[in-house]
Amino acid sequence: MKTTELLGEVAPDLARLEQYMADYLENPEPVLKDASLHPLQAGGKRLRPALVFLAAKFHHYDLEKLMPVAAGVEFMHMATLVHDDVIDQAATRRGRPTVNSRWGNKLSVLVGDHLFATAVDLIAKSSSNDTIRLLARTINEVVRGEIQQTNAAWRLDLTQGEYIERIGLKTASFFGACCHVGARISGAPEEAGRRLERFGFEVGVAFQMMDDILDINGDVRDTGKPVGSDLLGGVLTLPVIYALEHSAERDRLRALITAGSFNNGQLQDVLGVVRKSGGLEYTLNLAARYVDQAKARLRDLPDHPAKETLYGVADFMANRPV
Amino acid sequence: MKTTELLGEVAPDLARLEQYMADYLENPEPVLKDASLHPLQAGGKRLRPALVFLAAKFHHYDLEKLMPVAAGVEFMHMATLVHDDVIDQAATRRGRPTVNSRWGNKLSVLVGDHLFATAVDLIAKSSSNDTIRLLARTINEVVRGEIQQTNAAWRLDLTQGEYIERIGLKTASFFGACCHVGARISGAPEEAGRRLERFGFEVGVAFQMMDDILDINGDVRDTGKPVGSDLLGGVLTLPVIYALEHSAERDRLRALITAGSFNNGQLQDVLGVVRKSGGLEYTLNLAARYVDQAKARLRDLPDHPAKETLYGVADFMANRPV
Repeated sequence: MKTTELLGEVAPDLARLEQYMADYLENPEPVLKDASLHPLQAGGKRLRPALVFLAAKFHHYDLEKLMPVAAGVEFMHMATLVHDDVIDQAATRRGRPTVNSRWGNKLSVLVGDHLFATAVDLIAKSSSNDTIRLLARTINEVVRGEIQQTNAAWRLDLTQGEYIERIGLKTASFFGACCHVGARISGAPEEAGRRLERFGFEVGVAFQMMDDILDINGDVRDTGKPVGSDLLGGVLTLPVIYALEHSAERDRLRALITAGSFNNGQLQDVLGVVRKSGGLEYTLNLAARYVDQAKARLRDLPDHPAKETLYGVADFMANRPV
Repeated sequence: MKTTELLGEVAPDLARLEQYMADYLENPEPVLKDASLHPLQAGGKRLRPALVFLAAKFHHYDLEKLMPVAAGVEFMHMATLVHDDVIDQAATRRGRPTVNSRWGNKLSVLVGDHLFATAVDLIAKSSSNDTIRLLARTINEVVRGEIQQTNAAWRLDLTQGEYIERIGLKTASFFGACCHVGARISGAPEEAGRRLERFGFEVGVAFQMMDDILDINGDVRDTGKPVGSDLLGGVLTLPVIYALEHSAERDRLRALITAGSFNNGQLQDVLGVVRKSGGLEYTLNLAARYVDQAKARLRDLPDHPAKETLYGVADFMANRPV
């Protein structure tokens, strides 16, 4: 599905956002400008800014106030991706070379810091201190999620609960925060802000589950990264946890994971066991339940076409190509 | 000189700051807490928070408002150090293992992000958006300074002007910003805020020049890092630039630097040439002029004991053990 279709009435503002973000990365240091524009030019659905915009549609939609925050959350997200790619020594993202593979780790660490500081500058331009604090704390949750993920690598006794907590911190809290700040900037009542935040959080859980499904069963042409990337780093996601619990071949799977690294044959073997285990279907089902729960949160919001768009966004989370 | 002597009337508030910062790093993720406390426990003079406090002494000194900002600027500074040490693959800082050498690069990148986000959260707790924006932009200047330094590595045609610009971005702008925000929080008139900012900037230039002198001629027992660390990374500082311009042995110096790396014998050779060139005295002299200029900025401020303390801080910058 095209982004413009999916994001309906905020698509024009998202188009404006692209230019706004590019303008804000003007810099007297050419390499800093180029390396910061690089992840921006890689594109992406801009789901986080879209949530800021959409959550603001139910009350007073003030684009001038929303635009810096929408750009800010995308820059924060980009900062975490750039630093992630340094951490994971990733060579490609969305099918293009990463900042670290093109400019090296040194510059990538600095580019991430630059994007984060620029985000803070932008958000403080138009928002209250509460909004800045909420987003700064969200970054701290993302960091905690990343650390839990690192600590959990190759751990055979990882539970579904630990997985859900981790993706809540790593991904879903950010989606929730975007909805919350959009609602707040629009002057929505506290209660509506909380509902929209829950919506964002639950949609974010479904989004990460789908990401984890695609890592097992996706197509590099869609995802822009090789299948099994998580597994190669020891990141055990819900389909794998399910397979470790329920697969008929779980003893072999445990033995493979215990080794702490895979050659390509072993990786294919692990992927095969997980696919046969029913773990993908289980995860997809759970994601669909989160989507339903998310949609129910919107029931009592004022009637507005944005509600249909948010339903569409929620459905999209559990319907990306598996 | 003891920090308590140097920092006079703000020493008790700086002592309180230590506990305040430690409390704020409480975290449910034990490794994140330990690794964040590590650079805090390494100590340091807390010059940036001291400048925030001292610059606020001339008008309305409100510790409750100042404390979160003082902690915030120190966390921002710590974040840049932790990321610097990843970038430089440094093994020790202040005589102790760095975060990266103890916990690895992955966690260090995340710890830096965590410290930066925590700083933003703290600053937004008690300050206006202008203060947040000023400090976010200061981080962007630090990043630009770092990038200029990387780009200038091993460059024989580096000018004194480029050096001054670089240390202005990398170090002095942060010192200036600390004074500016302290003054603003105290309700000082714009003009007093600008003077104090210039004071901080010029003192910061002198501070960095002394740091660069100590890298050529310091004692690892005082500085906590081996002599010549900058040179080994190709970072050419003012004493070296001066030697490249004026030393009788400048041809040999150029040949050594052109090679793009030093073994220990070559490093000692370079250090010897720079020491004999008069570059250290030249740099020390220039630092002293910045200190004098800085002190002159304070002339028209209201009379207050903090003025004497700031004179002392300025003098300290150009009188650390050479």
